[in-house]
Amino acid sequence: MDDTSKRSLDLHEQLHGKIEVVSRKHVETRDDLSLMYTPGVAEPCRQIQADYQKSWELTRRGNMVAVITDGTAILGLGDIGPAAGMPVMEGKCALFKEFGDVDAFPLCVDTHDVDEFVRCVQLISKSFGGINLEDIAAPRCFEIEEKLKRTCDIPVFHDDQHGTAIVVAAALINALKVTGKTMGEVRIVINGAGAAGCAIGTLLSHMGFGNVIMCDINGIICEGDEGLNPGQEAISHITNADHEHGTLADALRGADAFVGVSRPNLVSTQMVSTMNDGIVFAMANPTPEIMPDEALRGGAAVVGTGRSDFPNQINNVLVFPGIFKGALAARAREITEEMEVAAAYAIASVIPDDELSPTNIIASALDKTVADVVAKAVADHASA
Amino acid sequence: MDDTSKRSLDLHEQLHGKIEVVSRKHVETRDDLSLMYTPGVAEPCRQIQADYQKSWELTRRGNMVAVITDGTAILGLGDIGPAAGMPVMEGKCALFKEFGDVDAFPLCVDTHDVDEFVRCVQLISKSFGGINLEDIAAPRCFEIEEKLKRTCDIPVFHDDQHGTAIVVAAALINALKVTGKTMGEVRIVINGAGAAGCAIGTLLSHMGFGNVIMCDINGIICEGDEGLNPGQEAISHITNADHEHGTLADALRGADAFVGVSRPNLVSTQMVSTMNDGIVFAMANPTPEIMPDEALRGGAAVVGTGRSDFPNQINNVLVFPGIFKGALAARAREITEEMEVAAAYAIASVIPDDELSPTNIIASALDKTVADVVAKAVADHASA
Repeated sequence: MDDTSKRSLDLHEQLHGKIEVVSRKHVETRDDLSLMYTPGVAEPCRQIQADYQKSWELTRRGNMVAVITDGTAILGLGDIGPAAGMPVMEGKCALFKEFGDVDAFPLCVDTHDVDEFVRCVQLISKSFGGINLEDIAAPRCFEIEEKLKRTCDIPVFHDDQHGTAIVVAAALINALKVTGKTMGEVRIVINGAGAAGCAIGTLLSHMGFGNVIMCDINGIICEGDEGLNPGQEAISHITNADHEHGTLADALRGADAFVGVSRPNLVSTQMVSTMNDGIVFAMANPTPEIMPDEALRGGAAVVGTGRSDFPNQINNVLVFPGIFKGALAARAREITEEMEVAAAYAIASVIPDDELSPTNIIASALDKTVADVVAKAVADHASA
Repeated sequence: MDDTSKRSLDLHEQLHGKIEVVSRKHVETRDDLSLMYTPGVAEPCRQIQADYQKSWELTRRGNMVAVITDGTAILGLGDIGPAAGMPVMEGKCALFKEFGDVDAFPLCVDTHDVDEFVRCVQLISKSFGGINLEDIAAPRCFEIEEKLKRTCDIPVFHDDQHGTAIVVAAALINALKVTGKTMGEVRIVINGAGAAGCAIGTLLSHMGFGNVIMCDINGIICEGDEGLNPGQEAISHITNADHEHGTLADALRGADAFVGVSRPNLVSTQMVSTMNDGIVFAMANPTPEIMPDEALRGGAAVVGTGRSDFPNQINNVLVFPGIFKGALAARAREITEEMEVAAAYAIASVIPDDELSPTNIIASALDKTVADVVAKAVADHASA
């Protein structure tokens, strides 16, 4: 066990859980009891019964997000089940509160059946103001998110997909500025066509990033390929406009940017050297697709990873607290692509242009000012 | 709107929810992030994957109760739906924390279908250490509780049934001492054969309180009566040993105690005057079956209500924080009747014998020392 694992385990043993539920007012007197509970509490109940919208004001719902998994894709550990996935969910909830002052509660749903999962989440959705889906395996996650979005009256957001896409977009916006590249003209190669990869490809395409090429373990994904899952099938229609085929190495030749959400050590210094003044976001965790020093040796102009011990950490903690805070503030029924794009530009804006550099394209994951900037942009772009 | 309702509504508008979810450790540094979240959090996940029991130590599960309703019997308001029931559930969660230091989270499940409700709760049960069912209409509540108890590996407790039964038993234990009555010889009349009434009848019968007579709107319930629901059917076998028939007034003649969980003003001074030095617990809320002054005028020896503005408030806030705290401490898989009985005697024990009097048979609902006394007794009687 490495040192971080050991110390994290110690911390977990000592804390006995990373979150807790507290009362927002102490109950000491008879009067407290009669206002917080019976008989006074009947009145807010009646008010909500008469006007459902008041549930956002009179209960915690207006600031409460459910962080929900089925335990099937917990970090890189795979399908480890609902109870074992809980430490990640609790951690996420702690970050929601610490970075966005958003209350979040972790729920692990113990089923592999998509419809059963969806129905369970629908049934409890009136207790929350938003639903953050987390660590659900692809392609199941696409179907779950789509079905929940159709039936819930609150925002449903699979952070592994959209949170990752938004923070990558934010980092790319600034990397283009640093390298003097033009959004509409760049060739971007995304490696890894799972939940995150497909969402990144979709968002970048819709935002107008030139030619987006998706690769998976079999190389470049092209419209008409056989064996694509629904997420990959969907993205094959909006990427790879020239219907290229080939390997990842083929794709990278002449590319302006690489975005890796795949596995360690898939990219070599030599491959980077074939890129066009390449932006390299090697986000496999904990070991990136290529280590930063090797990418730089290959001539990379900007390098980012998912890690906090290298410059340019591309981490969705910059996204989810603010995006939900904004959606909740606007009482949005969904998080639209327009809100996602607004979030990406808001994150990018946190680093002023005159402070941008190859090692400073994205705010620190610890910067607690980001969430409010994101929240404002998201709320401003929420549909009425 | 009365003054309490008005002030409670103001408080709810001001608080925007009575509970919140906080992080048990602040996240400020890179190190915090790597221990609370990735990459360190993978280790506790692996530990739980290898040993399911560790989920009680390494996550908040070991101190976390779900407070769950379907919104069908919210206070006296009836079936007002999941969103409108939330203020009561949040209030209950606030009391769990304030009185027992137990974390509790409110969930309203949006279905009237018993099996769908049960399945939903089962699916999320691995996120909790216990389940407190709340304000679910009878007879649905009996079936729901039974099915959940059979399939969940954590305690399931319908507080409206068992919490009420336990606190009534505690008050009766002390009322018998005050009046010099003997448990095995008393005649106790319970009016109201819903969830609470049936649970009170069952517990008192099993504890050895002499002759327990249940009444509902049609009068005394007798074995073999037609039209009984499953809960009433079950209780008809263990109460009313002499197969009496008649009205509530008939039942009260010569009775030692009356327990009302029914409706206002059903009992008259004259009826109390036919009792045998009667103990009167008139717990209908907010207006009792008989007002205390009227009961005393009829010759009642001890009077209790559910209200905080009269002596002897019989309120299950004395029960649920401690019973779950004890069950969680013992990591009990269920709350057995033995644990319930232990809780009743523990609550009774809080008032020393030499301080007992007709107006002091039960601890104040605000007494925060009760939960620990109950928790210890409950944990001591949990099966290994």
